[in-house]
Amino acid sequence: MNTNQLSMLRRDVPSEVHAGLKEHFRDRYTINPNILAQHGTDESHYAPAPPDAVVFVMSTEDVAFTVKLCATYKVPVIPFGVGSSVEGHVLAVQGGVSIDLSRMARVLAVRPEDMTATVEAGVTRTALNAELAHSGFFFSVDPGADASIGGMIATAASGTNTVRYGTMRDNLISLTVVTAEGDVIRTASRARKSSAGYNLTQLYCGSEGTLGIVTEATVRLHPRPEEVLAAVANFPDIKSAVDAVIQAVQFGLPLSRAELLDALTIHAINRYSKTTLTEAPTLFLEFGGAAGEAKAHADHMQQIVHEFGGGEFAIAISEEDRSALWNPRHHAYFAALQLRPGCRSVTTDACVPVSVLAACIEETRAELQQFGMTSPIFGHVGDGNFHCLILIDPADSEERERAEALSERLTRRAMRYGGTCTGEHGVGLHKIEYLIEEHGEATVNIMRRLKRALDPLNILNPCKVVHS
Amino acid sequence: MNTNQLSMLRRDVPSEVHAGLKEHFRDRYTINPNILAQHGTDESHYAPAPPDAVVFVMSTEDVAFTVKLCATYKVPVIPFGVGSSVEGHVLAVQGGVSIDLSRMARVLAVRPEDMTATVEAGVTRTALNAELAHSGFFFSVDPGADASIGGMIATAASGTNTVRYGTMRDNLISLTVVTAEGDVIRTASRARKSSAGYNLTQLYCGSEGTLGIVTEATVRLHPRPEEVLAAVANFPDIKSAVDAVIQAVQFGLPLSRAELLDALTIHAINRYSKTTLTEAPTLFLEFGGAAGEAKAHADHMQQIVHEFGGGEFAIAISEEDRSALWNPRHHAYFAALQLRPGCRSVTTDACVPVSVLAACIEETRAELQQFGMTSPIFGHVGDGNFHCLILIDPADSEERERAEALSERLTRRAMRYGGTCTGEHGVGLHKIEYLIEEHGEATVNIMRRLKRALDPLNILNPCKVVHS
Repeated sequence: MNTNQLSMLRRDVPSEVHAGLKEHFRDRYTINPNILAQHGTDESHYAPAPPDAVVFVMSTEDVAFTVKLCATYKVPVIPFGVGSSVEGHVLAVQGGVSIDLSRMARVLAVRPEDMTATVEAGVTRTALNAELAHSGFFFSVDPGADASIGGMIATAASGTNTVRYGTMRDNLISLTVVTAEGDVIRTASRARKSSAGYNLTQLYCGSEGTLGIVTEATVRLHPRPEEVLAAVANFPDIKSAVDAVIQAVQFGLPLSRAELLDALTIHAINRYSKTTLTEAPTLFLEFGGAAGEAKAHADHMQQIVHEFGGGEFAIAISEEDRSALWNPRHHAYFAALQLRPGCRSVTTDACVPVSVLAACIEETRAELQQFGMTSPIFGHVGDGNFHCLILIDPADSEERERAEALSERLTRRAMRYGGTCTGEHGVGLHKIEYLIEEHGEATVNIMRRLKRALDPLNILNPCKVVHS
Repeated sequence: MNTNQLSMLRRDVPSEVHAGLKEHFRDRYTINPNILAQHGTDESHYAPAPPDAVVFVMSTEDVAFTVKLCATYKVPVIPFGVGSSVEGHVLAVQGGVSIDLSRMARVLAVRPEDMTATVEAGVTRTALNAELAHSGFFFSVDPGADASIGGMIATAASGTNTVRYGTMRDNLISLTVVTAEGDVIRTASRARKSSAGYNLTQLYCGSEGTLGIVTEATVRLHPRPEEVLAAVANFPDIKSAVDAVIQAVQFGLPLSRAELLDALTIHAINRYSKTTLTEAPTLFLEFGGAAGEAKAHADHMQQIVHEFGGGEFAIAISEEDRSALWNPRHHAYFAALQLRPGCRSVTTDACVPVSVLAACIEETRAELQQFGMTSPIFGHVGDGNFHCLILIDPADSEERERAEALSERLTRRAMRYGGTCTGEHGVGLHKIEYLIEEHGEATVNIMRRLKRALDPLNILNPCKVVHS
């Protein structure tokens, strides 16, 4: 189904729902068109689909109230964090009520001895880390945007240090969830591990608001390493860069970050940041450990880089130097967009076994050139995950179709290589068909049965992940 | 329900099922009473409940055939690995067909570059590691028994090195599963991470054969550290030992293993292994890393041990010395049972936030003494998980009841402390009520809905985890 077809499915939101919400939320209920429009838009290139109302919840009870009321009238509810998702997750394609969790932004507890924190779903990752600044600990998951913890749980997000600290999935202890009936459940105790029944924490993580609405989470924290080092190295080709990382990981060298940028991305960065980096495939690396350890690991990595034909190995130790060294990587996305002012990006999210990552990237790059598209490529090497930013003129529908065709070919290539159609962005609106191709009809049928079991009225973020 | 009540629920296994299985499996089908008895027994102290037939499957197709046939006649199917579970998981309390997967024992692929292996469910952890002996990699999860990978997936098992390498959950990439309808599904691609739909891998992991039967798994491997060191240290009390580990973990010191044994366990070991260890709370530790690193970590740990009042810090470097140092820990279970020849053990599996572990153990120890029970205690400190082996005379029903009452009190204490009724053994037959106490009725209701959605005929290992 395309977005137009989906929007024909808009459901009626009866006046009782509006009245009930208005009475409960007062000025935290709105039908202001600008606010509706904002809540029907994310960072994707899909056409907006505004909800019929937005409520700004302050508590789990607020969420439960809203879901109960909407369930009575079969009205869709769509959780909203900061709107930074990139697969149309927050688009209210069937209308309904957007539940904005951004005001549920309290850090409820930090427990240094257990290395956990409990937060409301609206806390952003940088807000949590600001709260932890003097604790000796940090929260590791760092997608590009300053997403909310709830949003990161919804998409099973990851980031640049997943190679060492894991994805959102690996950093969850338990969740508080509002079910489709408006019941409030806690998925697990605060123990670090448990075999007590079905793993609801992991079922809700990555379910994109389609099985329940996460309102609180207990997450793992990690000790801040005593010593941190950054390094940058360029390579004659992508395969050499990837192989260097594989070798390091196989050796057990604890890389905190290992980001690959292709030559075009470096070119974009040089233009944007006025740097003079060699325009070749480049690794941005980070090491952390006890005093002396990070340096030893960096030295070891330098040997590996050399072995794989890498060029200059620039090391930065002080926080200022590290920041200067890594800044170009942090600005890569915006630098890439500036290659073509006024453009938008069709962003891909393939993730493959690391052994075939270089081949998959090279084939993709050749095809992008063949189709005459400008597309910087960068990725998280340790995870086998990479993104193409296929730049398009939003007014040029032929170009958009060409970009989408390329994106489709890349997604299929990743799946042929034993990989997944989405490493960290999620399924959202338009990867539902890929999900079937990736897993097969029987597997997706199990997912549909789960959806129907937990959301029989299909009110939780409908038309995302699976059609129930 | 007690076991007698459960056994009144035995279902009829019609002759068509026996005939169909016999025709398909020939001499891999049996109703030999000894073999039935063996398949209705695990390592728990619960009375056996033999199945009506056992089939020895050689392939996923064999499993699918059996499940399809049994589904037609609503006959229970119970997967069986090596029978080392401790919560009555394999007991055929409603009769039915035991599906023995021990002959599905092929390692299908080892992929060094991806650091993954694909195995059939019947492969045991030591068999997999034997296969990996010269690869430079190992499979990390090591529960006490030489369990099958399938069994370890079923219970979300863990072991002594979970503090560093995680539980079974953390070491799974994807599963092949036979559903209640006999369909064969694969839960995920071979990518290291994915946001492609609901996390079926984690839903089946820990579901104890009640949602589907796992026939193959792709697991993560870890590089063998270049250098490994073992160490043993005793402490004035349990709290000091636990605090030393907390401090080390908070610092980011990568402990490969951190096992705590109480004074009684050390006493049992001294009697059993003719050792002369100081009979005090003792940590068995292991460190692994690049050349020089493990030693540096051990030296750091020695300082921490000293800081917390620890006694002699015995270090072993060579494989022979390490083995000698750690052997007592490996024999702790049998040594404990030998404290009282002819006894059986009521084994507990509480797991709490690490910050309250010492308090929880101390209260438990005081109560064990107060009730006049002999019970060595040992545990995985980094995870907050500990086991009491409450030794009983199996012929003394009063003593058994006292032990079970103590086990119940401990389980409730763990839950009061924010922990779980089972850290790694699973729910099985007799923790179903605790599951409700731990999670609440609304949460368990969600689990029941999942069970009914994926196993509407209730044929998959019925009466385990939840009553559907």
